[in-house]
Amino acid sequence: MTDFNLMRELRRQAPGKIILLVMDGLGGLPLEPGGPTELEAARTPILDRLAAEGTLGQTIPIRLGLTPGSGPAHLGIFGYDPLTYVVGRGVLEGVGVGIVVRKGEVAARGNFCTVDAEGKITDRRAGRISSREAIPLVDRLAQVRIPGIQVEVRHVQEYRFAVVMRGPGLEPDIADTDPQRTGVPPLAARPINDGSNKAAELFNAWIAEARKAIADHPKANALTLRGFSTDPDLPSFPETFGVRSACIAVYPMYKGVAELVGMSVLKFDGDKPEDEFAAVGRAWNDFDFFFVHIKKTDSRGEDGDFAAKSAVIEGVDAALPGLLDLGPAVLAVTGDHSTPAKLKTHSWHPVPFLLWAPGTVRTDDQMKFGETACVHGGLGTFLATDAMPLMLAHAQRLEKFGA
Amino acid sequence: MTDFNLMRELRRQAPGKIILLVMDGLGGLPLEPGGPTELEAARTPILDRLAAEGTLGQTIPIRLGLTPGSGPAHLGIFGYDPLTYVVGRGVLEGVGVGIVVRKGEVAARGNFCTVDAEGKITDRRAGRISSREAIPLVDRLAQVRIPGIQVEVRHVQEYRFAVVMRGPGLEPDIADTDPQRTGVPPLAARPINDGSNKAAELFNAWIAEARKAIADHPKANALTLRGFSTDPDLPSFPETFGVRSACIAVYPMYKGVAELVGMSVLKFDGDKPEDEFAAVGRAWNDFDFFFVHIKKTDSRGEDGDFAAKSAVIEGVDAALPGLLDLGPAVLAVTGDHSTPAKLKTHSWHPVPFLLWAPGTVRTDDQMKFGETACVHGGLGTFLATDAMPLMLAHAQRLEKFGA
Repeated sequence: MTDFNLMRELRRQAPGKIILLVMDGLGGLPLEPGGPTELEAARTPILDRLAAEGTLGQTIPIRLGLTPGSGPAHLGIFGYDPLTYVVGRGVLEGVGVGIVVRKGEVAARGNFCTVDAEGKITDRRAGRISSREAIPLVDRLAQVRIPGIQVEVRHVQEYRFAVVMRGPGLEPDIADTDPQRTGVPPLAARPINDGSNKAAELFNAWIAEARKAIADHPKANALTLRGFSTDPDLPSFPETFGVRSACIAVYPMYKGVAELVGMSVLKFDGDKPEDEFAAVGRAWNDFDFFFVHIKKTDSRGEDGDFAAKSAVIEGVDAALPGLLDLGPAVLAVTGDHSTPAKLKTHSWHPVPFLLWAPGTVRTDDQMKFGETACVHGGLGTFLATDAMPLMLAHAQRLEKFGA
Repeated sequence: MTDFNLMRELRRQAPGKIILLVMDGLGGLPLEPGGPTELEAARTPILDRLAAEGTLGQTIPIRLGLTPGSGPAHLGIFGYDPLTYVVGRGVLEGVGVGIVVRKGEVAARGNFCTVDAEGKITDRRAGRISSREAIPLVDRLAQVRIPGIQVEVRHVQEYRFAVVMRGPGLEPDIADTDPQRTGVPPLAARPINDGSNKAAELFNAWIAEARKAIADHPKANALTLRGFSTDPDLPSFPETFGVRSACIAVYPMYKGVAELVGMSVLKFDGDKPEDEFAAVGRAWNDFDFFFVHIKKTDSRGEDGDFAAKSAVIEGVDAALPGLLDLGPAVLAVTGDHSTPAKLKTHSWHPVPFLLWAPGTVRTDDQMKFGETACVHGGLGTFLATDAMPLMLAHAQRLEKFGA
């Protein structure tokens, strides 16, 4: 795992810029034993050229066998060991819908649920109501006013929402109100320590008003909250690694994680790879490090659409000249985890990693970017948290250790 | 190393069953540089097919360069870091000959030694007397009675035996009675803390009687004890990983280690691979995880018989349909360590690892099960303690980490 103090000691300024291109869920599986993966099936002449000119490897996102969620997977590739830097469920859920949670604010994840006439839960997920049904209910919650504080509520998906409370004297050590079973009422928000008394009281006041606002709904007539948490106060990425850092992403979740580590989140129009790459170009002189996030590899993987995932990769490949023309010192192309179309979900498999750095890379004998080639690449198999020192080194942004 | 709390948090039930087939001392060495190892020389059409359909790697049993004993090596492959979970010498020796040591019981390893007329040790190993000579002496020790406690003694090998004391109020913190040199008498059993006073006293009483029982033997006329220890209270394997777990082994040592971690040790007739595999079949519906142990690869390696070790592997290969027909979700084939016939002993070399998991494995380009192929396999080189999360993941028995 990356030693942050060591990085602070060794970082140095250099002119070369670094692009970290993350295709979400890039790693795949062959449909048949011995067949190609999504990446291997894609026609990627530019990535293959970069593989030939650079070096390959495969990363372990967290530990062998562990399947990461999107939050931990990105923290890992940014150098933060996900088992050490645990971001609370409430904050991650808020971040996922674009709510920024700052120190002293308390976020929670909310579930709509169904209660009977006695107030006992009959369905912990309100019959998994659709997003279409849930959004107007979230609007009602957003209208609830509690004196002295501000509460922001946003819909997440189906029966799930995120809530953030802002005001003086709030601490997040509060137990979940979800009793994790039916036949009992939702629990009150109970402080785990005295510092959180005020926040728990205010959450209980908010819950009472919020329940009035939705009491007439046939399914989603109550709610539970869990994962109370605040800004995890992660070490600053730009400060630790000594790079002015920009995030270019379309989806709120990834912008949120980048913001949590202190990157500047760039605004731009469009959602295609070429739109994202153009945004990199416009900001080229203002930053040293560019995290560029492509979402659709993961989305098509989760759809189980092998060919569509390959097509997304081909689209990225075709747009790559837009990045290469900028003249980066280092271009790393990888994923945050694997999302094989065959499994339709995130998985634990290693993730292909391509490191291109003209003039400083030790080339290997691999000529094509793909999972099997990455097994044989010069970088070997390594923890995702080691990617940052590798990128910095190839940009000549790390001093020698010791005399 | 496997994070046991994390495993408890992420484990989940799934229908797929896991078989861990351990060929003891599987790893080998070529007789000549560039030649095949025992595994590579063996004709193994089924293992080669599984290698082609699955993925390969090589494990480090403890740390690079360390040669493990059988106990630590098995703990490692079960996920217990042998440097953290240290099982006392007495317990291991007892376990090795089928004595189960429970909490509150104290085990020690015994050596016969030779003392002169003044009671000073002249040979710490009693002239390395043969097992044939030692067994009747162990029988004499087993007849010794000490009021209020029960003592079990079993022969191990040559001048070595195992002893376990059972009774109320026993604690194991007792210093070795072996002075580690000649010309001095054996030491008394000395308690290291007050809690162990009673056990030390009783061991001294037993030693006095035991020495009377063997005093007339020309070589083995005294004894020393060391490695006083009790049940190490290892975290439960079935509970940690969420799998009902069975051990299928012929030799007491391996049944013992499996029992120490809480596996159910199955009884069956016969000692051939097909007998063991048939036992798996009979218990198929009652367990989720099957640890199957093949001893003779190690035995033939220790004999220095390269061809015979290859033949044992060929026998396992021929019997494999008996396992495959059961339809496991995951079959891992590996060793606990290497026992190259060329060295006639355990060694530190990495151990071949084959992971076969139809539908969830990422195949690599290796088509044969052997040491060199394993170097180039998709799993890379990894610590043996990471094998459990890998197997569980491929059986889809681990939840995603984080959102």
